[in-house]
This record gives sequence, C-alpha cells and structure tokens, in this order.
Amino acid sequence: MNGKERTDELGIGSMRLIQDTTAFCFGVDAVLLADFAAPKKGDIVCDMGCASGIIPVLLAAKSEAAHITGIEIQRAQAELFERNIALNSLEGRVSSVCGDLKDAPDMLGRASFDLVTCNPPYKENGGGLESVRESLRIARHEVMCTLEDVITAAAQLVRPGGRFAMIHRPERVCDIMCLMRQKGLEPKRMRFVHPKTDAGPVMVLVEGRRGSRPKLTVEKPLVIYDGKGGYTAEIMRIYERDGE
Amino acid sequence: MNGKERTDELGIGSMRLIQDTTAFCFGVDAVLLADFAAPKKGDIVCDMGCASGIIPVLLAAKSEAAHITGIEIQRAQAELFERNIALNSLEGRVSSVCGDLKDAPDMLGRASFDLVTCNPPYKENGGGLESVRESLRIARHEVMCTLEDVITAAAQLVRPGGRFAMIHRPERVCDIMCLMRQKGLEPKRMRFVHPKTDAGPVMVLVEGRRGSRPKLTVEKPLVIYDGKGGYTAEIMRIYERDGE
Repeated sequence: MNGKERTDELGIGSMRLIQDTTAFCFGVDAVLLADFAAPKKGDIVCDMGCASGIIPVLLAAKSEAAHITGIEIQRAQAELFERNIALNSLEGRVSSVCGDLKDAPDMLGRASFDLVTCNPPYKENGGGLESVRESLRIARHEVMCTLEDVITAAAQLVRPGGRFAMIHRPERVCDIMCLMRQKGLEPKRMRFVHPKTDAGPVMVLVEGRRGSRPKLTVEKPLVIYDGKGGYTAEIMRIYERDGE
Repeated sequence: MNGKERTDELGIGSMRLIQDTTAFCFGVDAVLLADFAAPKKGDIVCDMGCASGIIPVLLAAKSEAAHITGIEIQRAQAELFERNIALNSLEGRVSSVCGDLKDAPDMLGRASFDLVTCNPPYKENGGGLESVRESLRIARHEVMCTLEDVITAAAQLVRPGGRFAMIHRPERVCDIMCLMRQKGLEPKRMRFVHPKTDAGPVMVLVEGRRGSRPKLTVEKPLVIYDGKGGYTAEIMRIYERDGE
C-alpha cells in the first residue's frame, strides 16, 4: 500500500475503502446521501463525481440496485475507485468511468438511469478559502462543474419518472429548487441535516423526479448528535452500528 | 355586538380583536408570521389580505413600525378591521384599505414599503375540500389570488432592499423559491414550523429581500409542542405568555 493511502472498514459487511489521504476523503455527507437515495431493487444507478467510490460501494452494500456506475474526472481517484471495486469483489455490479460529468449523458446514455446521485463540490468558485491542493480544490469548489452543470447532467441521465438525489448546503436551496424545476427534475422530497435538535441545518438532502408534478414533501429533521455526547438512533441506524 | 362575532384578548397589552366566527378567524400562522416578520423601528409596512386585521394589530403592538396598512378584498372583513383599529386606538398607526391585493401597487404606491407581509390562501383552487361559505373559500383557497399574484404584488410594493415575509405550506417551497427569485425578491431566510421535534414541518416562514444577492439562511426549526403536553418556550415567548 502506498504511504499516503489508508483503508477504512465501512462497517457494512466486510466492505472497505482505500482513500488517498492527501486528496478528498469521504465524510458523513456521502453516507447520508447513500441512505437518503435508497435505490430500489433492480435500479440502474449513476453516481456523478464519485471520487474513490464511497457512494457506489455503499449503494452496492446497502441496496439491491442492479448496477451502479461511478464517474470521476480525476484519473488518480478513478483508479482508486477501480481498486475499491476489486477490493470489495463488486466487479459485477459496480463500474468505474473516468470522465467529466458534463459528458456523462453522451458517454453513458441519455435517460438510461433509474437513479442518479451526486455529492457535488459545495463551494462556488472563488468563494471560501480555496484548498491549495488541486485535487482537493476540484472536490470542494465549483472548479470543474457548477451546480447548474450537475443538475443539467442529472436531468439528461435519468429516465422519465426516475430520480435524482443530491446533498448540498442549505444556503443553496433556492438555487437547487430553481435549477431542478427548470431542468425538469421536479423537487419531491427534501430533508435538512441538523447537528442537534435546536440548531440550524448544515446540509440538505434533495430528491427530484423527472417530469413529476409539483408537490414537495419536507421530511422531519435528520439530527446527528443526541445532545448527550452521542449520536442519535437514526445516525446509528444509517451507520449500521445498532448492535454496538 | 353582533351574535356571530366574538372578541378575543390578544394577550399583548390590552389589544383585542373582533372576529366574525362564520368567516375566517386567525390562527397560529398569523401570530408566527407577525413574529417572524419583525418590523424595524420606523418601518412602513403593508399586510396583504389582512382579514379582520390580526397581523396589522399584532405588528402595531409588538414592534416600533411607523405605519401599517392592511388591504383586504372582502368588504365585511375590511369593516371589522376598521372597528379593530378603533377598538385598539390605532388610528394613527394602522390603516384599512378595502381592495384587491393585485391592485395594491397602484392603490398604495410602488416601492413604497419597507416590509410587506402576507398570510395567503394555502390551497390551490380546486385542491382540497372547498369551504361552502364564500368568505371562507376566499380566505383559504386561491380563488381571488394565486401565489404568483401575491409575490408579484409584494415585489412591486416593497422598496429596493426592503423585505417580504410570508407563511405557507412546506409543499409549496419550490413554487415560493422560484417565484420570489423570478420577481426579484431573493429568498434570504426560511424557517420551518414543526408540531414537535421529530415530526415534519406543517408550515414554512420565508423572507425575501428585493434585489439582494443569493444566499439563503435556513434557521433552526420552530417547534410548537414540547412533547410533554405543553408549548415550547419559544411559542410561549411569541405569545407573550412567559409570566404565566
């Protein structure tokens, strides 16, 4: 193993993930998005901007999705993703594609997925303290793709009636709502993630459905900490730590 | 007093409100909106669709707004509003106008308010069980005005940099976000109202600012019941029942 790599147990069966510790490493957002997206049995899924593959690996482990394709623009991350597919013996259900998500509809086929997921860069380019490392900058800032690029690609990848699930910052909710509707992915489900019950949200999960009629369900808050120094029961369920 | 009228103490100083019990009577939504809108000292305010005047009376009692105009399309409700102005000796600070909110910018002047508020009909026309009584139907359904009419009028009434505050159902959040941005009232603040901590929201409070740059703050949940059979401390504060 390379000195700058680490391998994490995912706590789901024997699933593991190799990550480059100098590049983007997955966080709670990827885990929450994989749970929120909840592929149905037999779903054909695409995860856009998958880095070393945390979301495809989690979706393979936690659902009966038929196939999951992950697309990642950074060559080194896409190679790690291929090694993670092999490490977890997922060659039959998970595929790695190195490419730009803006080209994904042409590369992977329009209207060919039941579900598209994305944990995109949160920060508008020029906003926030930019990461010095190029690979981190690409993962965190809208360098390679804007929110509009992400939603445009998702709307083209998903079949009519299919779903798009993403996680983002609450301050972008208006942008997300407007762009999803404009691109034909009607927002149907939204859930805010709060560090604790009486705090504002730090993340938002949104699901759009292609060609659906307007009616949004805002779900109950997803709370991370229980206020007694531990995680809430729901976070324990999502991390499959119920028995510990 | 007319047999179908009732007079409620508002629990704020000696403020009272006469209502017609066969027409629309105010609910918790009006009280929450008045608190959320929070006029600044000296603000010139307009409340659109004010019924018998609960929001103008609450704003006059709870803020240092310089003047509040309420506009109401139903003649009988506008007359009750005038009586409520007199009952509470608010002739100097509160005015009643009988008219259609769609005509409000022409009647009251464009860009002439620091703050516009609205507790509009929640139900799209044809949606839900329509109230038999015409006056209730107008208050609850989009008979006389749609959400687009409300936001269009607000955008014209409010001065550049001024605010528009409304309360609505969470299922309309995408409609609200898209229309407010389209009309130039950028959504800046949003707060969901939950019956209890672990339940989905039943109402949403939204504030837009005319000509502002995009950046939405989603505030911590506003929870009504404390789970022990009482109201939360925040609801007690809003109703000014702290001392009871």
